[in-house]
Amino acid sequence: MRYQLFYWPEIQGRGEFVRLALEDAGADYADVARTSAGMDRMMAMMRGPREKRPPYAPPFLKAGKLVIAQAAEILLYLGPKLKLAPKGEADRLWLHQLQLTVTDFVKEVHDTHHPVGAGLYYGDQKEEAKRYAEGFLSERAPKYLGYFETVLKRSGGPWLLGRRFSYVDLSIFQIVEGMRYAFPKGMARIEKKVPGLVDVHDRVMKRPRIKAYIASERRIPFNESGIFRHYPELDR
Amino acid sequence: MRYQLFYWPEIQGRGEFVRLALEDAGADYADVARTSAGMDRMMAMMRGPREKRPPYAPPFLKAGKLVIAQAAEILLYLGPKLKLAPKGEADRLWLHQLQLTVTDFVKEVHDTHHPVGAGLYYGDQKEEAKRYAEGFLSERAPKYLGYFETVLKRSGGPWLLGRRFSYVDLSIFQIVEGMRYAFPKGMARIEKKVPGLVDVHDRVMKRPRIKAYIASERRIPFNESGIFRHYPELDR
Repeated sequence: MRYQLFYWPEIQGRGEFVRLALEDAGADYADVARTSAGMDRMMAMMRGPREKRPPYAPPFLKAGKLVIAQAAEILLYLGPKLKLAPKGEADRLWLHQLQLTVTDFVKEVHDTHHPVGAGLYYGDQKEEAKRYAEGFLSERAPKYLGYFETVLKRSGGPWLLGRRFSYVDLSIFQIVEGMRYAFPKGMARIEKKVPGLVDVHDRVMKRPRIKAYIASERRIPFNESGIFRHYPELDR
Repeated sequence: MRYQLFYWPEIQGRGEFVRLALEDAGADYADVARTSAGMDRMMAMMRGPREKRPPYAPPFLKAGKLVIAQAAEILLYLGPKLKLAPKGEADRLWLHQLQLTVTDFVKEVHDTHHPVGAGLYYGDQKEEAKRYAEGFLSERAPKYLGYFETVLKRSGGPWLLGRRFSYVDLSIFQIVEGMRYAFPKGMARIEKKVPGLVDVHDRVMKRPRIKAYIASERRIPFNESGIFRHYPELDR
């Protein structure tokens, strides 16, 4: 099966959680919006007047006739197929639950630079962003990451599901990378309290396909259009 | 199967999307945190030192040995069991995708009164809330609800999946109710553009079990601790 991923071509964003799974599994896929005329195709699938089940927003994945949106749901679907999730119902639901908590965290990361409105410029909500980011770094991020650290410990490790590697480990890798990029100072403090997650990050980084992906042009660099943005004034 | 729902006992909140499904199906369930010592049990399941797979936050559902968190995931699990979802994979994924979009919308509703930080009082972010709510009522809510209206139209109706009633119709009912409570003026304007959703709301309201539930003490009234809050200064 050749998968077709649809996501904004210039950012890692929410699509990156799916890209990492496809890359780690060595899956055959096209990152459609980064190919010629791909953006037009993506927009047509969302807004075309004949689409019976249009996705609300990217990322979405086309797998044969199926079109699946929402990063966590794409991973729910892909997980067992890419051997990045267990097959039993209880384990799959637990993994999806963790990924939905990643989703909630990612939304709060986004809101550090857009607390007042996604439709406004950062410059028009900079003061509010400073207040938001302060609470984010002192309360919210430690709470979320502390939760994942607890989950990791209780699983017995070395991965969040215990001995079994899964797509949520890839998401933890991405969160650590993103937090280090966006909030180098704040994250340095937080990392002291979540050494297990840092270990997960380090081990993911050494996986051959991830290593090759990160070194390739397929990995879009972090930038100030994505979810994780480095604005020094927000990092205290 | 007697289900056990765990959610904050004094608000509708995110738990209400699950309560509506259980009620519409006439399922046997306990709303645990509203019973004696129930809050202690809920907190122990989240923070107890021996829980191997603790939920991050309520709502969560105990079904036999399974503990499932995240409202959308609980509905993914319960849907076919309560006959509120189709059984085929493509349809179930589509329905879940719609519910995850409901989840995203509900988070933005929450942020109308807490744009700067969930840990701060409303009074400490009132000015920011006004700015946020303005964009919410003029851009975001019409966009989300317009999307669901499109989905409804393309399905052929009368429900969001077409002829088949599902849990997402119950969520649309709850959104219309909540928006009317929180933003009577703003929602009156928006409703003109989403007549189909208003129809879905009206038809859900007439379902015998929903009617009985709404009239019962089990339905917690909307209030200013929940997701949908009525602050007149935010409704313009």
